[in-house]
Amino acid sequence: MVEVSRRRAIEDVASELFRARGYAATSVRDIARGLEIQGPSLYAHVTSKEDVLWAIVDRAAGRFEAAAEAASGLVTTDAPGMDPVAAMAGLVRAHVQVITEDVGAAAVFVHEWRALGDERRAAVLHRRDAYERRFREVVEAGIATGDFEMTDPALAATAVLSTLNGIPGWYRPEGRLPAGRIADHFVDLVLRMLQGASR
Amino acid sequence: MVEVSRRRAIEDVASELFRARGYAATSVRDIARGLEIQGPSLYAHVTSKEDVLWAIVDRAAGRFEAAAEAASGLVTTDAPGMDPVAAMAGLVRAHVQVITEDVGAAAVFVHEWRALGDERRAAVLHRRDAYERRFREVVEAGIATGDFEMTDPALAATAVLSTLNGIPGWYRPEGRLPAGRIADHFVDLVLRMLQGASR
Repeated sequence: MVEVSRRRAIEDVASELFRARGYAATSVRDIARGLEIQGPSLYAHVTSKEDVLWAIVDRAAGRFEAAAEAASGLVTTDAPGMDPVAAMAGLVRAHVQVITEDVGAAAVFVHEWRALGDERRAAVLHRRDAYERRFREVVEAGIATGDFEMTDPALAATAVLSTLNGIPGWYRPEGRLPAGRIADHFVDLVLRMLQGASR
Repeated sequence: MVEVSRRRAIEDVASELFRARGYAATSVRDIARGLEIQGPSLYAHVTSKEDVLWAIVDRAAGRFEAAAEAASGLVTTDAPGMDPVAAMAGLVRAHVQVITEDVGAAAVFVHEWRALGDERRAAVLHRRDAYERRFREVVEAGIATGDFEMTDPALAATAVLSTLNGIPGWYRPEGRLPAGRIADHFVDLVLRMLQGASR
């Protein structure tokens, strides 16, 4: 347990530093300083800065996947019984919640994953594609049922995720709007975007 | 002129490298290799990697600003004569066009500007705020005229720009949809998002 919580502390400190000044400008020494431990003893826990980035990105990806899976469990996502409006609202709310619950990790996931080495970056890209497919399938289902206005489903799914992934760039827990209210707004904006005039 | 085109060549090569593998993983030596010149002679043109990043980001910001200014010149943006739907469509189209005309620079602008040093990053943030204000003012005007459905204007303006700023993450000039068609789609998605059921 001590080991797990130490690793988690490293990820949290690194997330805040990567978020505040970027991955490029953060050194392992900076992370150690943030933890008030000496550089060499940090290297007992992490072998490189990229390993820390990978740990943060991998865990964030897992949280997005689990939240989407849980949201999908709440509504039927198998056509023809699926309610595309409820399914999309659930996916959007789950995504926003993962961001606002740990905005430091979400910011690193969204903004810094490209700094991973080739193999890990390819693995993240693969998972992002699978995740985006969930959104696209709901868009397609909604067009089929007439709940959503005709559009390019791939482009619309990408647009929805881009809209949500802007949140870590500005969200502050102590900001003007509470997390739940932000989720409400984004569910509304996304459904408007998909439903258009037919609502 | 030779000087200008050499600097531009440096920025183009650096944009592609920053976009492909990230700012952190790119060295001045990599940029020099991409230009097929020796490292030391590159240093005659640029004093640091951050200077190259700054040159790319500064020029991209200028292009976004000029395009928005030109788009605003095509429609009355002074309330009460403003047509908010036309104004927003113009801003969105201009923004997408700047991205698709030089997606390498746009990707660096969107994904890597946080790697700038504190002073330059603050300057970029200031310009981004002013740029976003244009979008927010059009949203506010549209709500006032009843063209747009009631929403939080600041959040909606941020959401619109997040939607558009996802484009450099996936756009390829040789891709499935031509740039003009992508712009059409995003004008449509953004207007749907703002107009909602009232369209």
